[in-house]
Amino acid sequence: MRIVELAIACGLLAVLYGIVTSFQVLRQPAGNQRMQDIAAAIQEGARAYLARQYTTIGVVGLVVVALVFYFLGTVSAVGFLIGAILSGLTGFIGMNISVKANVRTAEAARGSLQGGLTTAFRSGAITGMLVAGLGLLAISCFFWYLVSTHGANHAPTDRIVINGLVALSFGASLISIFARLGGGIFTKAADVGADLVGKVEAGIPEDDPRNPAVIADNVGDNVGDCAGMAADLFETYVVTLGVTMVSIALFVGNGVNTLALMSLPLLVGGVCIVTSIIGTFAVRLGGGSIMGALYKGFWTSAVLGAVAIFFATRYALDGDLTQQLGGHLAAAGPGTSPQTASHTAFTGMDIFYCMLIGLAVTAALVWITEYYTGTNYRPVKSIAKASVTGHGTNVIQGLAISLESTAAPTIVIVVAVIAAFQLAGVIGIAFAATAMLALAGMVVALDAYGPVTDNAGGIAEMAGLDHEVRVKTDALDAVGNTTKAVTKGYAIGSAALAALVLFGAYTADLKEFFPALIVDFSLSNPYVIVGLLLGALLPFSFGAFGMTAVGRAAGAVVEDVRDQFRSNPGIMEGTSRPNYARTVDLVTKAAIKEMIIPSLLPVLAPVVVYFAIRAVAGQANGFASLGALLLGVIVSGLFVAISMTSGGGAWDNAKKYIEDGNHGGKGSEAHKAAVTGDTVGDPYKDTAGPAVNPMIKITNIVALLLLAALAAHGG
Amino acid sequence: MRIVELAIACGLLAVLYGIVTSFQVLRQPAGNQRMQDIAAAIQEGARAYLARQYTTIGVVGLVVVALVFYFLGTVSAVGFLIGAILSGLTGFIGMNISVKANVRTAEAARGSLQGGLTTAFRSGAITGMLVAGLGLLAISCFFWYLVSTHGANHAPTDRIVINGLVALSFGASLISIFARLGGGIFTKAADVGADLVGKVEAGIPEDDPRNPAVIADNVGDNVGDCAGMAADLFETYVVTLGVTMVSIALFVGNGVNTLALMSLPLLVGGVCIVTSIIGTFAVRLGGGSIMGALYKGFWTSAVLGAVAIFFATRYALDGDLTQQLGGHLAAAGPGTSPQTASHTAFTGMDIFYCMLIGLAVTAALVWITEYYTGTNYRPVKSIAKASVTGHGTNVIQGLAISLESTAAPTIVIVVAVIAAFQLAGVIGIAFAATAMLALAGMVVALDAYGPVTDNAGGIAEMAGLDHEVRVKTDALDAVGNTTKAVTKGYAIGSAALAALVLFGAYTADLKEFFPALIVDFSLSNPYVIVGLLLGALLPFSFGAFGMTAVGRAAGAVVEDVRDQFRSNPGIMEGTSRPNYARTVDLVTKAAIKEMIIPSLLPVLAPVVVYFAIRAVAGQANGFASLGALLLGVIVSGLFVAISMTSGGGAWDNAKKYIEDGNHGGKGSEAHKAAVTGDTVGDPYKDTAGPAVNPMIKITNIVALLLLAALAAHGG
Repeated sequence: MRIVELAIACGLLAVLYGIVTSFQVLRQPAGNQRMQDIAAAIQEGARAYLARQYTTIGVVGLVVVALVFYFLGTVSAVGFLIGAILSGLTGFIGMNISVKANVRTAEAARGSLQGGLTTAFRSGAITGMLVAGLGLLAISCFFWYLVSTHGANHAPTDRIVINGLVALSFGASLISIFARLGGGIFTKAADVGADLVGKVEAGIPEDDPRNPAVIADNVGDNVGDCAGMAADLFETYVVTLGVTMVSIALFVGNGVNTLALMSLPLLVGGVCIVTSIIGTFAVRLGGGSIMGALYKGFWTSAVLGAVAIFFATRYALDGDLTQQLGGHLAAAGPGTSPQTASHTAFTGMDIFYCMLIGLAVTAALVWITEYYTGTNYRPVKSIAKASVTGHGTNVIQGLAISLESTAAPTIVIVVAVIAAFQLAGVIGIAFAATAMLALAGMVVALDAYGPVTDNAGGIAEMAGLDHEVRVKTDALDAVGNTTKAVTKGYAIGSAALAALVLFGAYTADLKEFFPALIVDFSLSNPYVIVGLLLGALLPFSFGAFGMTAVGRAAGAVVEDVRDQFRSNPGIMEGTSRPNYARTVDLVTKAAIKEMIIPSLLPVLAPVVVYFAIRAVAGQANGFASLGALLLGVIVSGLFVAISMTSGGGAWDNAKKYIEDGNHGGKGSEAHKAAVTGDTVGDPYKDTAGPAVNPMIKITNIVALLLLAALAAHGG
Repeated sequence: MRIVELAIACGLLAVLYGIVTSFQVLRQPAGNQRMQDIAAAIQEGARAYLARQYTTIGVVGLVVVALVFYFLGTVSAVGFLIGAILSGLTGFIGMNISVKANVRTAEAARGSLQGGLTTAFRSGAITGMLVAGLGLLAISCFFWYLVSTHGANHAPTDRIVINGLVALSFGASLISIFARLGGGIFTKAADVGADLVGKVEAGIPEDDPRNPAVIADNVGDNVGDCAGMAADLFETYVVTLGVTMVSIALFVGNGVNTLALMSLPLLVGGVCIVTSIIGTFAVRLGGGSIMGALYKGFWTSAVLGAVAIFFATRYALDGDLTQQLGGHLAAAGPGTSPQTASHTAFTGMDIFYCMLIGLAVTAALVWITEYYTGTNYRPVKSIAKASVTGHGTNVIQGLAISLESTAAPTIVIVVAVIAAFQLAGVIGIAFAATAMLALAGMVVALDAYGPVTDNAGGIAEMAGLDHEVRVKTDALDAVGNTTKAVTKGYAIGSAALAALVLFGAYTADLKEFFPALIVDFSLSNPYVIVGLLLGALLPFSFGAFGMTAVGRAAGAVVEDVRDQFRSNPGIMEGTSRPNYARTVDLVTKAAIKEMIIPSLLPVLAPVVVYFAIRAVAGQANGFASLGALLLGVIVSGLFVAISMTSGGGAWDNAKKYIEDGNHGGKGSEAHKAAVTGDTVGDPYKDTAGPAVNPMIKITNIVALLLLAALAAHGG
């Protein structure tokens, strides 16, 4: 338990970093009265939205916690609540820091670019460290508590521990899908609506204070790109570490090293928090590009992280990295054939190599995402060039790039799966995913920096600051587009690895709970194909809901703003202030309403599919279809998510590339076409695409819980 | 063999229908000199394109036939050649009829709407009956020849028969992917290019004779929507019937009824040709809508087809539909578990029910496609409404609809798979697919009618005919958008069923060729997941190639037309004729160049994946990954194809809906936004989307041939 306690200490360090850095940020000047007024309006709107969102989620959560309690008992219900509450808390704190840092970033950018970068990045780093720190604390403390007080002989592999970890993950996932989707709908409905009615119809610039939707747009950055994203990454962190521990419990079983091995993911998360904190201090311009400055932080964390992971692994395994681990059970999981069962044992060194693979995957995904969304490379330039011939060719080229962008990440993930599996079976894949998430603190920091700069630009515009301030915040924001895309590719990439491990856990549980049942997961079984097809359908349907919701809510914004312009002509003349709160309220209601059905889709689909197929073809085929559904959802979800997030980022930066003076610059026909592409990319990259990640997890976790519930209640 | 001979007679009847109807069409008046000149230019361009396309394909085909000959022997090489040549011939004849019917349709539409409909539909019916007739003749005659002259004791299950049928399918598929993709790139590059530079830049109407790209656009309808589509459906027909026969040979094995059962798909195809011919005579306006008239033909064919299939089945099985068939071998295929092996036997009645399921799937897909692409329903109306707020919201809503449109077809296919499998195992699924394709003659007729009316409208415009002629051809053309989308949904839907059967054939072959090898197709095997992911990647990468190709080639068209306008100002003044041939030639070269790499992707991917995984993880895992690749490509391909073809059709008709006077009508801002959506939908629905169907088949067939080649040459 020494190792777990070390991890807890690292988690506390992250929280401490968050508190100290918060004071640093809050101590900075908040600008003039006008700026503070605007920031206050944004804060108010964001808080009102989150309050309403959490109330709604709370109702759903209470129903679910009652179900969890009834079917799985107190410990699981407590685990669910911890996951849910901390997930919500992470989003809430992240949003609160972000809405205070925005105005301070605008003020700092009046001084220097470095000043703006520092303030914005610090704010991002607070969110990042809290995501990792609270995630680590949640899982470490709960694990520590369960092993200390529950379980036969305090065995970490006891069912109560496993169920507790799964329930904790479920709590985190359920909240995060609502937060990701609700926030995503809010931010893009406001953004698209504001652009359409402001830039396109009224011909006023972005963030013009005369636009009634402009505050809603800025609120959206905070509740979607910050709070929603933080909840999403919190979920990814908790689920990935949790499923790694669960898979060790299921596959390696009770042995001499089991507790150490199960604690290792926690320690790896812990030491990487330390290296991420060190990394944050490496973020300095130093004459280079903004992206370069951010990369310094990333690379510092990653390289130091690799070293720290080595020592953490050696420490956890008592200094011996060569002993065989898990040799008494097939690491590849139950029901394996002669080929897959060949990896029955692995060493500490193998585990370390697997974690290096995870770090390499992260680095590769960062690089690939930058290639597809950065303004220096072919993809974005090709979209910008296609804008010259009109709206249609811009969108065609953007869709082509979005389809194309799936290839390289898929090949990276495939190579990683093969390599990690060769080294240490399913456990190896789990540790690769864990190492990816260990860097979450830094990755989230890079991402959460984006909405702060975006808001800072909005405040600078609305408060009528010098044009050069806006130029600085725009430069910071352009990089934010890429870092935002990076996080999404990273989250979905880790989801692909985690999904394989989750499927392994599903098959192991199935064998434990229903030992007499022979379930045929072979592709020759048509019920497997049926499951794959239905699973693959989920991301498409889910994406359709997300896109439609944004379109509909954005339309409502347009109507509202038109109405305000009509009924109050003083707004356009600048003599009277628009009713910002009315628009915020409208988007809030729309987003809350639209998020519910699609969020429930992945919760209900596994249950419906299992019972439907069971009714037609028996229980074994019900389980076969359900298992295949879990893989179907990642097989198509990976592509849907990557294509949407990379494509959307590329469209956005193609617009920025033109605004930088290429192909005629701002106001040209090419620019108009690029604005269309950007609008299309908005719900792609910030609503539908990123929500696929928590959706995949939920589907998997619900399946695991369904198994446990069926077993507990006699199938 | 009596049954096969009956099928051959039906195939000959289809050819006879084609010849007679051709004379009917050609006898009709071809309009005035101006119309004939334009038609001649289109004919010339289309022939020049096809000649160059077939030359290029010929080179690839010769290399492939040499490989087939070397690895698999003479019979397979001959089979390949038959499939390839007839596939090409179908496209060639279809295109030739189409380019002659277009001007006659325009002339007939000067008289009455019914006249235009009759001429256009007859032309489509010629293509339809030739697709089905030549497809049936190819496979029936080759089968007849093989069984009569080859094989041990003339057994229809002899390996030489199976390999011959697979090679025949390969020939058809290889040609069709080139034709579908090359034609698709041609037609949409010309269409998008002409629209961009004509409608958008120069502000001249569609099909204005001053636009140098206008002839290329009309050529495109013939080489893409007609010749390419015909080759594609020919391929689907041959592969579906072929794989049904192969699966009977593999799963049911040599028994009393085997020859009868293997011949049954041919007879089903034959009798449905007869009912389709009868159906063509039911296509009459009779005061109703155009769509209603076409539906009369479809329903007549389908209902009579169901009755005919019943009698065909009874006839083939000597009047006894209740005897157990295939009881001595697991119909579900090898390697089955207790659950799947429960369907070891089925009766003739079961087979008949499976075919009814196939017909029901076809009807359901037709209805769903009409819902998603027809102007009377929510989806198209929602896109039209979203156009009011601009280009961006039009595209967002279109993408939302395209994602949404995958759900209903998937559920239909899933239900069909389960029902057919419950009735008769994999053989049941095969017969359901066969029944779907049995209606191909009528479905293709409805589709091929579209480009003829599109061309007729172009000719009417260019020849300066009365406006009311154009109104009539436009009305005919709008229905064509839906019928075109129907065919694509139908083809990909049948591909989903066929893919399951092809996978069954793959596993059966594997067992036969490598009896000692234990291949683990379980989802627990990570190499299966790797295969699924790589397979799922193929349609995305392929789509990216297709979209990029159209964008690039359309850009070249824009440059060429701008250059013609610049260097010859007389064109815009109407005093001098543009150089149509130059543009046609340019698009021809671009399309040929762009089609090659993506067409080779599905040919090479199976080979590369097998050898790569074998090198890393052994032969058994190589085969496991390859098998999973085959299913991965359909799991994602189904969604990519349906979303693209339905979405594209919806965008196109949303534009037409606005042009009918809604939301401001032609020239309004909403119309401009709808034109953008239409442009985006063009490569979606006519290039990338439809080519996914032959791509899926090729991947599967190459895998089967790879197995045979490896077995023949010692693995």
